[in-house]
Amino acid sequence: MALTEGKDNRGGKAPQNSGKVNYRRNVRQNNRVRALETLQNRHGGKTYSKKENRKNPVKIIPLGGLNEIGKNMTVFECCNDIFILDCGLAFPDMDLPGVDIVIPDFTYVVENKERVRGVVLTHGHEDHIGGLAYLLKKIDVPIYGTRLTLALVKGKLEEHGLADKVKLCEVQPRKTVHMGCMAVEFIKVNHSIPDAVGMAIHTPAGIIVHTGDFKVDFSPVDGEIIDLARFGELGSRGVLALMADSTNAERDGFTRSERTVGGSFEKLFESAVGKRIIIATFSSNIHRIQQIIDNAVRHNRKVSVFGRSMIHVMSTALELGYLKAPEGTVIDIDEMSRYPDEQIVLITTGSQGEPMSALTRMAMNSHKKVTITPNDFIIISATPIPGNEKYVTRVVNELMKSGAEVVYEAMYEVHVSGHACQEELKLIQALTRPKYFIPVHGEYKHLAKHAQIARSMGMPEENIIIGEIGNVIEMDDNSIRIASQVTAGRVMVDGLGVGDVGSIVLRDRKHLAQDGLIIVVIGIERVSNTIVSGPDIISRGFVYVRESEALMDEAKQVLMRVLDSCNSNELREWGTLKTKLRDVLSEYIYGKTKRSPMILPIIMEV
Amino acid sequence: MALTEGKDNRGGKAPQNSGKVNYRRNVRQNNRVRALETLQNRHGGKTYSKKENRKNPVKIIPLGGLNEIGKNMTVFECCNDIFILDCGLAFPDMDLPGVDIVIPDFTYVVENKERVRGVVLTHGHEDHIGGLAYLLKKIDVPIYGTRLTLALVKGKLEEHGLADKVKLCEVQPRKTVHMGCMAVEFIKVNHSIPDAVGMAIHTPAGIIVHTGDFKVDFSPVDGEIIDLARFGELGSRGVLALMADSTNAERDGFTRSERTVGGSFEKLFESAVGKRIIIATFSSNIHRIQQIIDNAVRHNRKVSVFGRSMIHVMSTALELGYLKAPEGTVIDIDEMSRYPDEQIVLITTGSQGEPMSALTRMAMNSHKKVTITPNDFIIISATPIPGNEKYVTRVVNELMKSGAEVVYEAMYEVHVSGHACQEELKLIQALTRPKYFIPVHGEYKHLAKHAQIARSMGMPEENIIIGEIGNVIEMDDNSIRIASQVTAGRVMVDGLGVGDVGSIVLRDRKHLAQDGLIIVVIGIERVSNTIVSGPDIISRGFVYVRESEALMDEAKQVLMRVLDSCNSNELREWGTLKTKLRDVLSEYIYGKTKRSPMILPIIMEV
Repeated sequence: MALTEGKDNRGGKAPQNSGKVNYRRNVRQNNRVRALETLQNRHGGKTYSKKENRKNPVKIIPLGGLNEIGKNMTVFECCNDIFILDCGLAFPDMDLPGVDIVIPDFTYVVENKERVRGVVLTHGHEDHIGGLAYLLKKIDVPIYGTRLTLALVKGKLEEHGLADKVKLCEVQPRKTVHMGCMAVEFIKVNHSIPDAVGMAIHTPAGIIVHTGDFKVDFSPVDGEIIDLARFGELGSRGVLALMADSTNAERDGFTRSERTVGGSFEKLFESAVGKRIIIATFSSNIHRIQQIIDNAVRHNRKVSVFGRSMIHVMSTALELGYLKAPEGTVIDIDEMSRYPDEQIVLITTGSQGEPMSALTRMAMNSHKKVTITPNDFIIISATPIPGNEKYVTRVVNELMKSGAEVVYEAMYEVHVSGHACQEELKLIQALTRPKYFIPVHGEYKHLAKHAQIARSMGMPEENIIIGEIGNVIEMDDNSIRIASQVTAGRVMVDGLGVGDVGSIVLRDRKHLAQDGLIIVVIGIERVSNTIVSGPDIISRGFVYVRESEALMDEAKQVLMRVLDSCNSNELREWGTLKTKLRDVLSEYIYGKTKRSPMILPIIMEV
Repeated sequence: MALTEGKDNRGGKAPQNSGKVNYRRNVRQNNRVRALETLQNRHGGKTYSKKENRKNPVKIIPLGGLNEIGKNMTVFECCNDIFILDCGLAFPDMDLPGVDIVIPDFTYVVENKERVRGVVLTHGHEDHIGGLAYLLKKIDVPIYGTRLTLALVKGKLEEHGLADKVKLCEVQPRKTVHMGCMAVEFIKVNHSIPDAVGMAIHTPAGIIVHTGDFKVDFSPVDGEIIDLARFGELGSRGVLALMADSTNAERDGFTRSERTVGGSFEKLFESAVGKRIIIATFSSNIHRIQQIIDNAVRHNRKVSVFGRSMIHVMSTALELGYLKAPEGTVIDIDEMSRYPDEQIVLITTGSQGEPMSALTRMAMNSHKKVTITPNDFIIISATPIPGNEKYVTRVVNELMKSGAEVVYEAMYEVHVSGHACQEELKLIQALTRPKYFIPVHGEYKHLAKHAQIARSMGMPEENIIIGEIGNVIEMDDNSIRIASQVTAGRVMVDGLGVGDVGSIVLRDRKHLAQDGLIIVVIGIERVSNTIVSGPDIISRGFVYVRESEALMDEAKQVLMRVLDSCNSNELREWGTLKTKLRDVLSEYIYGKTKRSPMILPIIMEV
């Protein structure tokens, strides 16, 4: 499980394996000459005959990220070894009222924790690392990732009081870490955060390539282009399976380079002369922030930073050297007042219109330090994530009402995606030439489109698996199949509670949100079974009671008639009595209002 | 108030006014030669000197449709006369849980009902006619609209039991109706529903042009191009103010013709040979449905119709001749089984992923008559309305999981907007050459963009009003200003209740949805002020109680300690006691869970 400090292999040779026979040359070819070949596992040092190979297939168990956006997590298992690739969170959609975040169900890895060799991380986005702290409260394993990724993980762990308890192991691209009989090689990719990697997973059954989140950027801001050569090299050696990012599988063409956004900023900075510039973007998009800083320097502006996560990420990135700014460029918020508007750029969170973000507070005129004026030129450098459109629109409207100019539309090219479009997906298929294909990271529609792309390039239908979380996808050189199923699902985190909000709680919340509730309170004397108090009616979220007195009075009469008709036996059976009260009141209320509030009869024993 | 059966004036002359001096030639010119000119009101037959004109300004009072999408309603007022243009509804957004629809606040028109001469309608979409039934329960006035619009209104009125009580007056484009001292001329426009009109409102103060919802379609499916000539003619005579649709003011270029969708259908029908075709679209987009029927006929397919509103609108449109289908083309749902898949097209509602719609039920495998199979070719001919993206995505995912092919992306051009883009908006400005401009129909960002378009064409800043609902916009030849304010707002309809859901009810619903509630019940004996029962705790939507017994037990202990510490005087002051219980429990719960459920202490007097 130690890090392999192998040499950089830009020469095109495989790490630690020069001169040896590659244990898999080309999967399709292998298929034909199967019986003759002896495969060698270069990492474990053992040799497997083809027959043994059949007995030791590799299992891929997605626990998140399939048929959904977010909470990416995949288990790789071979013989007695398990490792985990990414452990992200998802943000709750409208179906999960009150839920803060959603994480994967960890049951399977907790049940097998003695076999888990570690967690490898592709990059530092929440949907890839946000579940980690919750996992590490249940299992103790080392974490492997690139420098920036680990710095961001560290911040998370500190919030959860885990910083000192977890072993974080830094890895560079082209380096390999061993996970029992498997080995994971990190491969540089482009994405909307620096230091993103894909993985080549070397297993006794063959090589599995996982792209992580990626795009192909031929002019990246940091100059480091995705390591296409290595993907190609692996393809030449033979890739058993490819798992690739499906987020943009619906979009044709190529994703534009991050650098084009810098060009758009340049033009906008020129048209904003004399004005204060405010730019909202994702705090983790450090290359975008670099381009803002570069433009600020060129246009003689100081940069001030707003929003908790923006301040945190920027200071981390400056410290680690991922972000470069000349001395004195980034100034403290309180220094801002020393400079006129035209010498200022604010960088802020809130590009998704998040209600508590700095930009939203500026828009709603409730930010302590910034008041929006007609002398503000505001750029929202992001596209609304589905579900956030209305939040973003509200912020744009309010900013405009203050007289500010707001640039947010696609036509200004102030945002590019971090994910590969169809032509890039084809490029990765062509380079890796996998035998099997498992599209990952996306809803069903994305996975299905991605599968279609693979088919259009000649991949046989039966070699493609569109999986579901919990599937145990078992493969070796002969076949790929969904062999079984393990526990998988979503665990809701609400405040400090992890998993204590389930379907019943959510159903009640939704019911309460729709029509509110009516509480009926009755006091029954225990010995004689007579009503000594009530029925009293209390409602919340149902009607404005002061204007609905007649309705509430009549409802009380309806209940009294029910109670009057009950004999003392019936008053003794509280379950039946409650049901009766609920049914009668529910019918009465629905008839009068066409609403179905939750009705809670409470019988108090005196 | 009677309909004017004037001649059609395609020759370019003004109706009822040929030969007379036009009372306003060109507003900007008039501005310069103001003192010399005498203006004549051609509709009332009176002449107004410029001085008189100043005394009788026209007032425009938007009651809906500004700073929002939907519930369009505008009051026009001059001297003693009032009329209403459109009366729509809005669909509630995420901020209004449980609310069915939102309608304008009618207070102002109800208070002035004896002066209201009628309602004129631009077209039959819900956001323009959906509030009418609620208005007509409060005031009794005639409704003017084109044939299809009135047919759709009639359906609404029947649902509300108002069909026999309301006077519906059919009007054709280029015809005029009198509203006291004002007259309203109907002008043909293109939109995503047939029979849409804009209006020229002839007032003593000048002509106001209102576009209604519109686009410029040079190849409309029914052959009737927007009456640009009439807009131009009015512009030549002098338009005091233009009120124009801002929905697409953010989009550059021209909106594509509805006919292009027919071309896309043609291609898709060809690629769907051998499969059943299912197309979801808006029921009111009759021209789109016509193009589906035309394609069905050409490809030897029968058409079957699903969804309540689709069936209703299609049968109305067929009956009135807005939709044409050869005998035997449209078949009953139950006849479908007689034909093989490749001879069938289903037209259905659900293009917005509405949870109860026919398409959603098909996707969720809960539709009684239709089961989705890999032999289905499904076209979603619509763009998700902001807020509906997640619903549509869910439906697409489920349809694809059944193996069906689903076409929904913009690249297939299966939908075009019904609203004018920037170049069309400029065209209307250029034709009408208004003195004043009031952008309408849109959120603030749309109105602001539209204002910018007008400015870019030379309109002075001070001649543009970006209004708010309730503004009384007063104008004559000399000036335009927001003179005062009337009651305006949104009225929530929930079930049968109109306006009984207000801010307190909504606040409670949102609170309940976030964290649920805890009810604390205590019985206090009235004479001795001693506790005879409780405290009992009941919760809903908070935690899964069976797994949180310790928490609930401890909460009870916390409450008991509060009660124990109270003397009998404190137990007498129930208000104070309740506050104390709420505060202590709230603090305890938040400390343990970081959640803030609603806490309802109930004290029962025994």
